[in-house]
Amino acid sequence: MTTSSIPGYRLGDTTLPKSPLTKDDLATLKTTLLFGDADVAALRQAHGVVEDQVEAILDVWYGFVGSTPHLLAYFSDAKTHQPLDAYLDAVRKRFGQWILDTCRADYDEAWLAWQDEIGRRHHRSGKNRTDGVSAAPHIPMRYVLALAVPISVTMKPFLAKKGHASAEVEAMHAAWSKAVLLQAILWSRPYAREGDF
Amino acid sequence: MTTSSIPGYRLGDTTLPKSPLTKDDLATLKTTLLFGDADVAALRQAHGVVEDQVEAILDVWYGFVGSTPHLLAYFSDAKTHQPLDAYLDAVRKRFGQWILDTCRADYDEAWLAWQDEIGRRHHRSGKNRTDGVSAAPHIPMRYVLALAVPISVTMKPFLAKKGHASAEVEAMHAAWSKAVLLQAILWSRPYAREGDF
Repeated sequence: MTTSSIPGYRLGDTTLPKSPLTKDDLATLKTTLLFGDADVAALRQAHGVVEDQVEAILDVWYGFVGSTPHLLAYFSDAKTHQPLDAYLDAVRKRFGQWILDTCRADYDEAWLAWQDEIGRRHHRSGKNRTDGVSAAPHIPMRYVLALAVPISVTMKPFLAKKGHASAEVEAMHAAWSKAVLLQAILWSRPYAREGDF
Repeated sequence: MTTSSIPGYRLGDTTLPKSPLTKDDLATLKTTLLFGDADVAALRQAHGVVEDQVEAILDVWYGFVGSTPHLLAYFSDAKTHQPLDAYLDAVRKRFGQWILDTCRADYDEAWLAWQDEIGRRHHRSGKNRTDGVSAAPHIPMRYVLALAVPISVTMKPFLAKKGHASAEVEAMHAAWSKAVLLQAILWSRPYAREGDF
């Protein structure tokens, strides 16, 4: 699937609002979570490992969300509480692309703007708009951040599936985990009080 | 050192404001980051492993903060930019106790209230007050969250130091990493807009 055929996918869309974070802000944030060049290289390696496993990874994540009522609620109609299949499917296409994007991110202004937009889509300021759905109107910040854990730990078996040495798998997994938390933190930006982020 | 002899330490202080989070809120948050009974047990085991290594662990963390200018700034005078040694020492005593507390937390109302207070002490609403210092008045939320990484990854060698099997070390380290992120998330509560956390 080409990215242009994924509805609502906007990495590289120059009409997105700019992130309030500068490249220097991103650099100090990366330093704080020990995210360095070796992690970028390990993620590039991970791209080749996971690119043909995206659907299997999404099956695990959707299995977790689907079996966790307080999370499934955010994909369910706010009134009837029935899961919205078309919404789940639309998010799934972008989520699959996000796995690949996380492995080869450029960390440039376009990437920062896209992270800010992803944050808004979890927050009440932008949730449901992209897909025109009537789901729960806001995902609390604490869950956006906490989901970094399942999105990280479940990745390890997939990274280990192509016969890489244990140390390489560890390096890819550590880089993945930091990259996920980095993004979850960027997604929490619209939740923070003015000047607090 | 007994906890009562640590200035500013208030876990169990019934005069602290209650956390706005309920025990049910905490339960769903723990579920979201896959934090379960096995993690609680692994942390109890970790307590015995790290209790005589607290100062060495703090040396590593203080080494990182001390060598990272944008982080040292939060322990430095807001005007002269000189590190405030008395402030660094006061925080260090509480930070050491926090290591042990993280290993044997009760996750009760007193613990939740203390996490909320720790959050305020990083946020402009409470920073510097406990120690009466003139340091930078606010630690941005993104750093509070990102510091979960160095506080987690640096712990592994210390958990491995007492001859436990590799799988036990892994379990203790995974539990530690989740417990740190859980707390960093709780500390971000005062930063979030009303109703957004």
